[in-house]
Amino acid sequence: MEQLKFKNIAHKKGQPPGTLIYTGNKTDDYEIAVINYNSEEYCEHELNDIEECLPFIDSPKVSWINIVGLHKVDVIEKIGRFFNLHLLVLEDILNVNQRPKVEYSDEYLFVVLRMLTYNELSHQVDSEQVSMVLGKNFVFTFQERKVDVFEPIRHRIRNKTGLIVKNKADYLLYALIDIIVDNYFVILEKIGEEVEILEEDVLLNPSQEVVHTIHRLKRNLLELRKSIWPLREVLNVLNKDETSVINRNTAIYFRDIHDHTIQVIDIVETLRDMVAGLLDVYLSSVSNRMNEIMKVLTIIATIFIPLTFIAGVYGMNFKYMPELNWRFGYPMSVALMLIVGILMVIYFRRKKWL
Amino acid sequence: MEQLKFKNIAHKKGQPPGTLIYTGNKTDDYEIAVINYNSEEYCEHELNDIEECLPFIDSPKVSWINIVGLHKVDVIEKIGRFFNLHLLVLEDILNVNQRPKVEYSDEYLFVVLRMLTYNELSHQVDSEQVSMVLGKNFVFTFQERKVDVFEPIRHRIRNKTGLIVKNKADYLLYALIDIIVDNYFVILEKIGEEVEILEEDVLLNPSQEVVHTIHRLKRNLLELRKSIWPLREVLNVLNKDETSVINRNTAIYFRDIHDHTIQVIDIVETLRDMVAGLLDVYLSSVSNRMNEIMKVLTIIATIFIPLTFIAGVYGMNFKYMPELNWRFGYPMSVALMLIVGILMVIYFRRKKWL
Amino acid sequence: MEQLKFKNIAHKKGQPPGTLIYTGNKTDDYEIAVINYNSEEYCEHELNDIEECLPFIDSPKVSWINIVGLHKVDVIEKIGRFFNLHLLVLEDILNVNQRPKVEYSDEYLFVVLRMLTYNELSHQVDSEQVSMVLGKNFVFTFQERKVDVFEPIRHRIRNKTGLIVKNKADYLLYALIDIIVDNYFVILEKIGEEVEILEEDVLLNPSQEVVHTIHRLKRNLLELRKSIWPLREVLNVLNKDETSVINRNTAIYFRDIHDHTIQVIDIVETLRDMVAGLLDVYLSSVSNRMNEIMKVLTIIATIFIPLTFIAGVYGMNFKYMPELNWRFGYPMSVALMLIVGILMVIYFRRKKWL
Amino acid sequence: MEQLKFKNIAHKKGQPPGTLIYTGNKTDDYEIAVINYNSEEYCEHELNDIEECLPFIDSPKVSWINIVGLHKVDVIEKIGRFFNLHLLVLEDILNVNQRPKVEYSDEYLFVVLRMLTYNELSHQVDSEQVSMVLGKNFVFTFQERKVDVFEPIRHRIRNKTGLIVKNKADYLLYALIDIIVDNYFVILEKIGEEVEILEEDVLLNPSQEVVHTIHRLKRNLLELRKSIWPLREVLNVLNKDETSVINRNTAIYFRDIHDHTIQVIDIVETLRDMVAGLLDVYLSSVSNRMNEIMKVLTIIATIFIPLTFIAGVYGMNFKYMPELNWRFGYPMSVALMLIVGILMVIYFRRKKWL
Amino acid sequence: MEQLKFKNIAHKKGQPPGTLIYTGNKTDDYEIAVINYNSEEYCEHELNDIEECLPFIDSPKVSWINIVGLHKVDVIEKIGRFFNLHLLVLEDILNVNQRPKVEYSDEYLFVVLRMLTYNELSHQVDSEQVSMVLGKNFVFTFQERKVDVFEPIRHRIRNKTGLIVKNKADYLLYALIDIIVDNYFVILEKIGEEVEILEEDVLLNPSQEVVHTIHRLKRNLLELRKSIWPLREVLNVLNKDETSVINRNTAIYFRDIHDHTIQVIDIVETLRDMVAGLLDVYLSSVSNRMNEIMKVLTIIATIFIPLTFIAGVYGMNFKYMPELNWRFGYPMSVALMLIVGILMVIYFRRKKWL
Repeated sequence: MEQLKFKNIAHKKGQPPGTLIYTGNKTDDYEIAVINYNSEEYCEHELNDIEECLPFIDSPKVSWINIVGLHKVDVIEKIGRFFNLHLLVLEDILNVNQRPKVEYSDEYLFVVLRMLTYNELSHQVDSEQVSMVLGKNFVFTFQERKVDVFEPIRHRIRNKTGLIVKNKADYLLYALIDIIVDNYFVILEKIGEEVEILEEDVLLNPSQEVVHTIHRLKRNLLELRKSIWPLREVLNVLNKDETSVINRNTAIYFRDIHDHTIQVIDIVETLRDMVAGLLDVYLSSVSNRMNEIMKVLTIIATIFIPLTFIAGVYGMNFKYMPELNWRFGYPMSVALMLIVGILMVIYFRRKKWL
Repeated sequence: MEQLKFKNIAHKKGQPPGTLIYTGNKTDDYEIAVINYNSEEYCEHELNDIEECLPFIDSPKVSWINIVGLHKVDVIEKIGRFFNLHLLVLEDILNVNQRPKVEYSDEYLFVVLRMLTYNELSHQVDSEQVSMVLGKNFVFTFQERKVDVFEPIRHRIRNKTGLIVKNKADYLLYALIDIIVDNYFVILEKIGEEVEILEEDVLLNPSQEVVHTIHRLKRNLLELRKSIWPLREVLNVLNKDETSVINRNTAIYFRDIHDHTIQVIDIVETLRDMVAGLLDVYLSSVSNRMNEIMKVLTIIATIFIPLTFIAGVYGMNFKYMPELNWRFGYPMSVALMLIVGILMVIYFRRKKWL
Repeated sequence: MEQLKFKNIAHKKGQPPGTLIYTGNKTDDYEIAVINYNSEEYCEHELNDIEECLPFIDSPKVSWINIVGLHKVDVIEKIGRFFNLHLLVLEDILNVNQRPKVEYSDEYLFVVLRMLTYNELSHQVDSEQVSMVLGKNFVFTFQERKVDVFEPIRHRIRNKTGLIVKNKADYLLYALIDIIVDNYFVILEKIGEEVEILEEDVLLNPSQEVVHTIHRLKRNLLELRKSIWPLREVLNVLNKDETSVINRNTAIYFRDIHDHTIQVIDIVETLRDMVAGLLDVYLSSVSNRMNEIMKVLTIIATIFIPLTFIAGVYGMNFKYMPELNWRFGYPMSVALMLIVGILMVIYFRRKKWL
Repeated sequence: MEQLKFKNIAHKKGQPPGTLIYTGNKTDDYEIAVINYNSEEYCEHELNDIEECLPFIDSPKVSWINIVGLHKVDVIEKIGRFFNLHLLVLEDILNVNQRPKVEYSDEYLFVVLRMLTYNELSHQVDSEQVSMVLGKNFVFTFQERKVDVFEPIRHRIRNKTGLIVKNKADYLLYALIDIIVDNYFVILEKIGEEVEILEEDVLLNPSQEVVHTIHRLKRNLLELRKSIWPLREVLNVLNKDETSVINRNTAIYFRDIHDHTIQVIDIVETLRDMVAGLLDVYLSSVSNRMNEIMKVLTIIATIFIPLTFIAGVYGMNFKYMPELNWRFGYPMSVALMLIVGILMVIYFRRKKWL
Repeated sequence: MEQLKFKNIAHKKGQPPGTLIYTGNKTDDYEIAVINYNSEEYCEHELNDIEECLPFIDSPKVSWINIVGLHKVDVIEKIGRFFNLHLLVLEDILNVNQRPKVEYSDEYLFVVLRMLTYNELSHQVDSEQVSMVLGKNFVFTFQERKVDVFEPIRHRIRNKTGLIVKNKADYLLYALIDIIVDNYFVILEKIGEEVEILEEDVLLNPSQEVVHTIHRLKRNLLELRKSIWPLREVLNVLNKDETSVINRNTAIYFRDIHDHTIQVIDIVETLRDMVAGLLDVYLSSVSNRMNEIMKVLTIIATIFIPLTFIAGVYGMNFKYMPELNWRFGYPMSVALMLIVGILMVIYFRRKKWL
């Protein structure tokens, strides 16, 4: 959750490096699911214990092991032991406030991504860490909570649609990253719609609410940028065909995600510029409206003050005020007030103040 | 259309990569036109089916196949099959919200550009994707809607003016990109004129309208920048003579467009700076004008309030107020008011408040 | 202390380079402590004289000599002589306003870091220089004051937890730097919480206090940035395995700190953007609130001024004012005032001014 | 002219590339002048036809052919034919809205510069294109209008002062570029003086005029920056001794202009920062002054309103108002008003409002 | 002097390059002083004519020739002739508005620096050019005016303290540059103190003065940045051991100055950010204070206007106003006013307006 963002970052302070501690929020979600497939057949299993995945890994088919819930640190530890992952990689899987990054050795490739979800209630962009480990013929994915973002890929494997089942584990990794990046567009669409509603609000109904919406959108866009910007470098590594576990034909696909990522960054920057521009429009709208009101009110006051003065003069109690005894003194004074008032209105009109 | 910009970007979410879906707006425009030429002769045909273009491709002359309307996905698919284009290229042709990019293999070169048009009604810059595939002796161009932007090139081929007919397909590609980039100058000219009109408006008639115009211009310039900025890299690739389908003599021409693109970016940045500066001028104009009004009104009120006070004093009903019984009490009180009023005016004048 | 920051920077002006002068604040803290360990055993000693550390250095175990208090310049000078450190290195140890940097020769590696502490009283980030010299089998650490930041590492050595005791001196250097960088997260967490409290304050209780808090946070974030930004380059050198005193296996750990540092910079930049955004929200909140007050007050005045005018008219002392003698003149005038007042309220309501 | 800047940029739209069209303003200036010199002798000629320059080119001396007026497109075309210049070079000479650039082949070097003049009447910086072609032993210069900027160089050739006559054509090119860059300092000096006058105006006499001056200066500085920034790259090429027509000894001189150009950019950026700062000072001056006025006026009103109230109370017509019948009721009421007024003034003074 | 900064930059316009003209302010300071030293002995001389320095140069000891006053152009010319300096180097020595730079040939190294002094009277940073030429065993320093900045170095040579006398001419160059860079810290300390005083002023006493101080500080920091920023590149060249006249052992010292320079730039940027932040704080302080005053005043007016209205009503002269004849009409009306006033105060209190 957004509000807790700065509360967990120092969770591990003072612990020796390599200590495996889960730094995210507690959750009850816990699941280990394996899909084992090739272009002819597939099977799905839910595992109780991580040891059960070992036979799948040894099969020549592609295995995708999805682990939901990182609070069971011993599971991660065992995976590290079985697959010979570096201690720092395990630490990164559990430390769920990482920025996107990629690391690789001769045997495996490790990717950290941020999955973004748009919270419809709080209108906040929540971000969650998804780690992936790509080996020879398997992919591990680690999620904090059970979210259905990978469901379409499971669907494609089951139905043997698309190219996934015809390719190796590296293509599966591509498909998984692709679906996460595609999801960014959904978030951007939501924010884009909000910006457009905001644009109308600013013109028609510039309330103080608008400032808070702008502030919230700015925070969301900051969050997005922080999550997406480093992804560019990650994909730059992946499409450059430098690693031993991604083969050449798949690298070109990562280049495609790279292009999408740059497009996402472009849109984020454009939205940031637009939101910043809206604040200017809002501020000038508000001050304009306020100024109009104050102007009219001040003009009303300004017209009546001299009239009240005239009335005041003839309210004086001097014994010798000849006008007071005139037959038409009263109507003449009223006429005087009318003339003064009309002259002032004309003057203000001519000056374009009214 | 501008207003829909953020509504389509997530169109393909959850689809397997390589699924061919047209992400643009529905349109009825549909046309396949072939021009087949060399320096001696040319012929033009409108095709019903994409298969009919195959004989043209096999001719030694240069063929330019222009496809308008991308909603017929099967046409694109067939082209991909006939000319051995990568699935991701086909996807890029149909996904019409791409940023400009270039990709090439040994056999072909693929370019995505954004064609900009200035909508005179809404004063908005609309942007449309134009994709091009350059092969050995052919160029494919893909447009969403029928716009006449390439007409001058057809004209030149028909009249054999210019260098097009004397050169190969790579020169045709250059001519097509050149005409799109030249078109950016037309848009900039329109926006430049708007900025100049705005500049006068800000000084002579600073209404709230101005803020909206500034906001609109900013959006247009953002749109322009987003479309043109990545073009620089595209042309950098093209003029570097690295690809097998562009030969050396033509590469120098792409360098020329590269220079134009940088000039366009320069002008866009200058216009952005100018528009941003105009907002400052506007805001200070408005607040200045408002301040002037408020100052004058407040001064009027300030002069009359003490006078009204004097009138109030002589309106009191005390039994023993000697002035009230004086023979010249009334004119003296009026004189007092006059003196007070005049002194205040003099004081305000000296202070330069009036 | 923050307030003195700009008062010491020119301390050494006019001194010949290589003159050893301590440029920090006077302090009574002074201590030389040695820990000598390998994976089997360890011993701790407090030394009176720096010469006493020589036997430890010659032992095959790893020695960590922590020197607190830099005002005893002769101690530093002796260390320089014993371990053949360059005069400029000694100068850098004593000149405690350095930016983070790394320097290495064939025999040793010299690192300058800034340790940050959050002063709970003044809500200021204080920064202190920590220098480290890594040799073949020893690490020197130099601190200005006695702060317990390294205590967890001593603890780990004593309890033989973690990887420290299994590794060489270069791993100790890593552990020391790691604990300093981890500490940055603690500071960021504190500032992050302050920003969140501020965010609520800005909405609920936008007092002038807020501006000072924003200014203070900005200064703190500037201080943080200045201390952390150059660290990136330092760690870039360390993880690149270019130096002779860090071996390959340890270099990967420095890469991990490098990632953390970039994450810290990311958060600092995000916080800076958020704080800057909060100033906008605050300013618009304040001016909004002020405008609301002024509007209501002006409306009250505007309603009563015409009513007072009517009262003024019937307060005039003309002899012939027929209304004055009417039987129901008084209630009619009051009714007139009521009607005028109500009409004005209705008008203001319709205009949405009330 | 500044006002027409955005009106010509799309002049060539739809024309085939390589079409020679002059895109500048019509002018009657037309002149072809040749100076042919070596260290011993020189001769000057005015030519009617461009063919007449051919014998000069063939002479072993250095020839400088200055062409004023680009509307005679056929002259440029002939030069292109005689000297084998690329069609795109000819196009660049005639398209006078280019940014500075350099291009070179084995036989010649082509430079586009912008010559700036300060229009004393409109206080605008006008910019004009100057193109130069350097060959083996000749330099062509192309100007739109007859301006005397090169006169000092002619003077030096005639008097054999300086190093020009002792060197080859490349040194002449250097001298020509040098005089254009030197001219930038003249413009900067003018703008610098304007900024200084403005600085005083902002403090002593902050009128609305100031905003327009600031806006104009910003535009001028934008224009300058646009013209000078790309020059850096041009000179980088020239001083790098990569081209065949510039020899090593002269390259060092281009390095000198490069330094000057960077200095010009420095000053432009400094002036931009200063002008931006002045807007802040102006805005705060104006609002401060306005606030002072409003404060004083409001205080006057605030003092008199309670006094008027007291007068109003004793102006009431109640039958039983004991004060009215007191012998000293009137002076007492006046005293009351005085006391209230003085107390308020004291209160405002103590609050530092007056 | 600051005020004249933009008046001299175009001094040389139209002069042939290589013309030796002094572009600084006229001064009477003129002095040529030689110090000739090695680790055993030293001698100091004041020369009348530059020829007299030749024997010193030929001695195996290190010679430092300090030339004060550049208006005697012939002296510079002679030096150029004797030591074979390039004409452009001589020009750079005399053209005293250069940005820092370094140039070197096989025989000598030429450095241009800016020496900054803080003018206590005008609170301005003045900048003066110092040029240095390093040869085999000599250093020339060129100053415009006699300032004592190098005195400590003379002192060290005389007393044989420090490393100067033990090293060659390149170390002398290092010491001279070091003392100039150290001096920047003194300036920064002064500005830092000013910023801190300003920080208090902004909170306690936010007068219009503050804006001018901020503007002045900004200018000073701009001046500093302009003088120091290019120094980084200069020192980058010097510490890279590429030149023939600086030997390896000394290069490491230049690296030390390089670090100091980066630190200076860091501090300048921090101060710039702080000053910019202070403007925001000031503006919000002022508008807050103003708003408070206006609010209180408007509330006073708003409370009295309805009361005055009530008084006005009972000041009307209707014949039939029953209240006027009531026994307790007057106290009741006063009570009514009190109640209305108190109710309004309560209302304003509840709304937190008071």
